[in-house]
Amino acid sequence: MRRIYLDANGSCPSLPKAQEKLLEIAGLFGNPSSSHDHGRKLRGIIDEARQIIAHNLKAKEKEIIFTSGASEANRLFVDALLEQSQKDFKKPKVLLSPFEHPSLLKPILRAHERDLILLTIFAIIDGQLQIDPHQIKDADVIIACQAHNETGLINDLDQIVKNARENTLIMSDISQAWAREPLVSKRVDVLTFSAQKMGGFPGIGGMAIRGVGKTLPAPWPGGGQEKGYRPGTESALLIASFGEAARHLDQQRAKHQELKSLRDYFEDNLRRRFRVNIIGQDRTRLSNTSAVCFVEENPDALRISCDLAGLSVGFGAACSGLAPEGSFALKRLGLDLAVEKSTIRFSLPPDCTKADLDETITRIDEKIISHKSRV
Amino acid sequence: MRRIYLDANGSCPSLPKAQEKLLEIAGLFGNPSSSHDHGRKLRGIIDEARQIIAHNLKAKEKEIIFTSGASEANRLFVDALLEQSQKDFKKPKVLLSPFEHPSLLKPILRAHERDLILLTIFAIIDGQLQIDPHQIKDADVIIACQAHNETGLINDLDQIVKNARENTLIMSDISQAWAREPLVSKRVDVLTFSAQKMGGFPGIGGMAIRGVGKTLPAPWPGGGQEKGYRPGTESALLIASFGEAARHLDQQRAKHQELKSLRDYFEDNLRRRFRVNIIGQDRTRLSNTSAVCFVEENPDALRISCDLAGLSVGFGAACSGLAPEGSFALKRLGLDLAVEKSTIRFSLPPDCTKADLDETITRIDEKIISHKSRV
Repeated sequence: MRRIYLDANGSCPSLPKAQEKLLEIAGLFGNPSSSHDHGRKLRGIIDEARQIIAHNLKAKEKEIIFTSGASEANRLFVDALLEQSQKDFKKPKVLLSPFEHPSLLKPILRAHERDLILLTIFAIIDGQLQIDPHQIKDADVIIACQAHNETGLINDLDQIVKNARENTLIMSDISQAWAREPLVSKRVDVLTFSAQKMGGFPGIGGMAIRGVGKTLPAPWPGGGQEKGYRPGTESALLIASFGEAARHLDQQRAKHQELKSLRDYFEDNLRRRFRVNIIGQDRTRLSNTSAVCFVEENPDALRISCDLAGLSVGFGAACSGLAPEGSFALKRLGLDLAVEKSTIRFSLPPDCTKADLDETITRIDEKIISHKSRV
Repeated sequence: MRRIYLDANGSCPSLPKAQEKLLEIAGLFGNPSSSHDHGRKLRGIIDEARQIIAHNLKAKEKEIIFTSGASEANRLFVDALLEQSQKDFKKPKVLLSPFEHPSLLKPILRAHERDLILLTIFAIIDGQLQIDPHQIKDADVIIACQAHNETGLINDLDQIVKNARENTLIMSDISQAWAREPLVSKRVDVLTFSAQKMGGFPGIGGMAIRGVGKTLPAPWPGGGQEKGYRPGTESALLIASFGEAARHLDQQRAKHQELKSLRDYFEDNLRRRFRVNIIGQDRTRLSNTSAVCFVEENPDALRISCDLAGLSVGFGAACSGLAPEGSFALKRLGLDLAVEKSTIRFSLPPDCTKADLDETITRIDEKIISHKSRV
């Protein structure tokens, strides 16, 4: 049986060009911090990737910090924020979107529990962040990802930017949206991102720090790499393939936008044939994402039968270890744990076809759901 | 001109087998945390590597945590220590070797400055840690790398283990020694290590946590990967090649021991022909490392001329960003900054030959040093 991969938000296949780059430099060695030819060669490779990525983000090269991924970049941001507030003897007022990845949400919630920040969470009505100008004006720091990994829901960063004070630090995890949606405003001061969501490999990602973010201190002392922000020898191998993937971001974005009609076709078919709720159906979402709740089904059976039927799909926050406590975001969207567990996240990779989706519907019908879910 | 690589302590060439492994799995994709076939395949690859590494370290698989390298593992350890002390409302008495890498030294010094730990640093006499049984008995935590990256000096962990209390946490960064020296005692509770020093690629490493270390809390909240200790999608690519390199650790260790006679031959030749001091000459050192101070030479000229002469060698703490403040360890060894800057670290890779070293001596003589350095 042919397996069908519909878990692109968990991890996207790497581009063939990124794989080629990997092979091209696998034989090089040395430490990019060394002041000799072996080191300089690797430094050059890293700087070239940094240049491509900076260009794509409309940022300066010196504003880009490589990390081991978006999870690490998110923690780096929170640690920098806490370091700064400790220096300034001032608790920042943080306004947080509930659609954040656990790698950002959890450190922020912990900082709040420890009374290190003053936290407000955006209200959600009908599946959408409520952009309250007073609340936004009041915030020292606003954290809102561009798109939510579980549902594809897109935050209205333009409205946030429009209403924010000049000296408010705006931070956005663009991991899920970078290769899929138009770039966020240059007013967003800190961006975090991951190569594995845009055609590079897992294990590399980064952070752009500019504007109001420039005053953030480097919170992790160590070897001094990446302008002191991120200790540890850089992985030239993963960085080079990341840069190579970034060369093709425009094509990826175009491909991704074409997925919308396929995704809508898929959702129409699902609704016509099965008893389902599609989360955020009428809201602005990533073109490739469909979080579908099979309300009548047993969650455990659903998970197992999808896999047995050859469908690689996502459940819950699929790019994290399986969290039994449920999703913070889905709770805020008013969904209880039972509904959440019966939700399958279909996230289409760029090369997804109509045939893949037709076959998926057939398998759902024949191998996955019970009679209770049929319309 | 053929370049000669003598900077193995900065970064070791990856093994051909590790490169092959990379190519073998470059086309796989998915998220190892996903509960479907694509995810499970990657999970299997990661677990296989974990098994090989655990076996080699005489640890259990569940005791191994993958990180992006030893730098990150060192920070993870310090953060866990501080998290624990915060929970226990007790400042730990930490006894520290001055030979630690900046990624460990600096977070510990910062914790000390912030009054979060009670710090004592091992005394050094004649280039050797002074193992004072009373000092060791008194410590809650002892931190001593197995070998020093800059000089190759080896810490006597057996003596530390022998004198430590049962409930004292002993931690050792084995990065430089793992593929070179016999394994440290199982009594060492926390080990940190890096793939790039043993035939894998930069960007991956890890930590073993066992014994007294088992009570260390997971300090970084996030996606829950690596038993909650290390958030972020694992790089199956780098982990698999790391595991492959670890299969060949015994051969690497044997090769490395053979370097001793080559290194001694090299040092004899240097001493016979040039005015040099070799740091730790009569002390137990890594077989491949020679930190040679050309006392009469201008440091900047030395650095540039080595590179121009086709020698890739190390200066100072070569696996970190170039630190202008000088090396903590060399200061403790009684060397001033001028001496330190005139010190070249020759660190032989496993495939180094007598011809490489003869050619190195010729180039030093003809292209690098001034008449003042000749005997």
